[in-house]
Amino acid sequence: MQTNGLSNDLERIAHKTMADIVEIRLRDFLKKKAFKPGDALPKEIELAESLGVSRNVVREALSRLRMLGMIETKRKRGMVLASPDIMGSFERVLDPMFINENTLRDIFELRLTLEMGLADLLYLRMKKEDVDELEEIAKNQKITAGQHSFRIKNEIAFHGKLYTMTGNDTLQRFQNMLLPIFGYLVSLEKVPIIGKVSHLDLVNILRKGGKEDFRQGMFLHLEHHFKKLK
Amino acid sequence: MQTNGLSNDLERIAHKTMADIVEIRLRDFLKKKAFKPGDALPKEIELAESLGVSRNVVREALSRLRMLGMIETKRKRGMVLASPDIMGSFERVLDPMFINENTLRDIFELRLTLEMGLADLLYLRMKKEDVDELEEIAKNQKITAGQHSFRIKNEIAFHGKLYTMTGNDTLQRFQNMLLPIFGYLVSLEKVPIIGKVSHLDLVNILRKGGKEDFRQGMFLHLEHHFKKLK
Repeated sequence: MQTNGLSNDLERIAHKTMADIVEIRLRDFLKKKAFKPGDALPKEIELAESLGVSRNVVREALSRLRMLGMIETKRKRGMVLASPDIMGSFERVLDPMFINENTLRDIFELRLTLEMGLADLLYLRMKKEDVDELEEIAKNQKITAGQHSFRIKNEIAFHGKLYTMTGNDTLQRFQNMLLPIFGYLVSLEKVPIIGKVSHLDLVNILRKGGKEDFRQGMFLHLEHHFKKLK
Repeated sequence: MQTNGLSNDLERIAHKTMADIVEIRLRDFLKKKAFKPGDALPKEIELAESLGVSRNVVREALSRLRMLGMIETKRKRGMVLASPDIMGSFERVLDPMFINENTLRDIFELRLTLEMGLADLLYLRMKKEDVDELEEIAKNQKITAGQHSFRIKNEIAFHGKLYTMTGNDTLQRFQNMLLPIFGYLVSLEKVPIIGKVSHLDLVNILRKGGKEDFRQGMFLHLEHHFKKLK
């Protein structure tokens, strides 16, 4: 057996720090005791004593939960359980600089998938004013060579507006995070490629066409991206 | 002006802890210095001295970055920048117990959007063996009253397999996280509702139909969920 095969079969033991362990214990504790947002947590010193670890380690673990928005400190009440901001922690790591190639490609595909799936929510919730506003953005689209950065900005404005029109905050924030990565990948193209269906065409479909027409239009708009996938 | 209106207009000043501030400083530092995954970071004590804060605070901030997978400790080399596991931090907060109603609803819609957008990647990458396996899962679907939990398990297996078939790891992991929330919301239904198009129907479309047929089939499969949206 090759060493390579062995390292594939034998899963590496992940090194856990004390903070990792305490973090997991605290999560389990919160779930087991069925804490609800707003409930007060035991004091840091009590947690340290129960767990038999130093206050520093507890503070480290609590700091992680605080970063995720899972706990917050209230005046007079101390630490309470909060409703985490599910997108907040995601935003912190989603930076093209820190992400490897495979994940960048995955995220790009994830974005295409969302874009193709938007039609249902759009047709359920879009208002006439929204479509008017979208048209204004589409009209601003002047594609000239050398204006790559302008083009990306406009792309982001147009597609961002589509997400806003779904009336889904989480989806919109998620998309806001994916867009810079999209912009980064598009910026690697030597020559800007324009889809068969333009932004203005999409606006017209929204005005006069049905859900299926929009989906078909969006596919043609994104087709050159899909063609690059393997 | 009402107090209510005022608190809407005046954005509340968010209270930042020292760890919050040091975390932001460290992120900015890593970006400004263009650290790449694998590069060694300065020592904890050096960071504390440069920032003029205690080592405890630096340790707290580093612990957060470690939790996000942005840094890791290597034997002999000390702390190095790592490629963050973008889904890892997301998994930590995505628990129906901790998430508020609006966000749950948003996530449910996000899942429907992804499901409707899957067709393109599926038709690009699915293999015959995958469809065979999917058929086996679909055949296991026996819906009887009182077997709600079995039904949810089967739902998760079927839709999870679809995501695997896209060949996109990030999408698959993302979906894995969304599925418990989906399961949670379905478990609130008093009577299990069955879509007009079953899992087996979807398998048959994958075998004989095109992308558009699949999309239409998926819509009919999910239609009862879409009908509940406002």
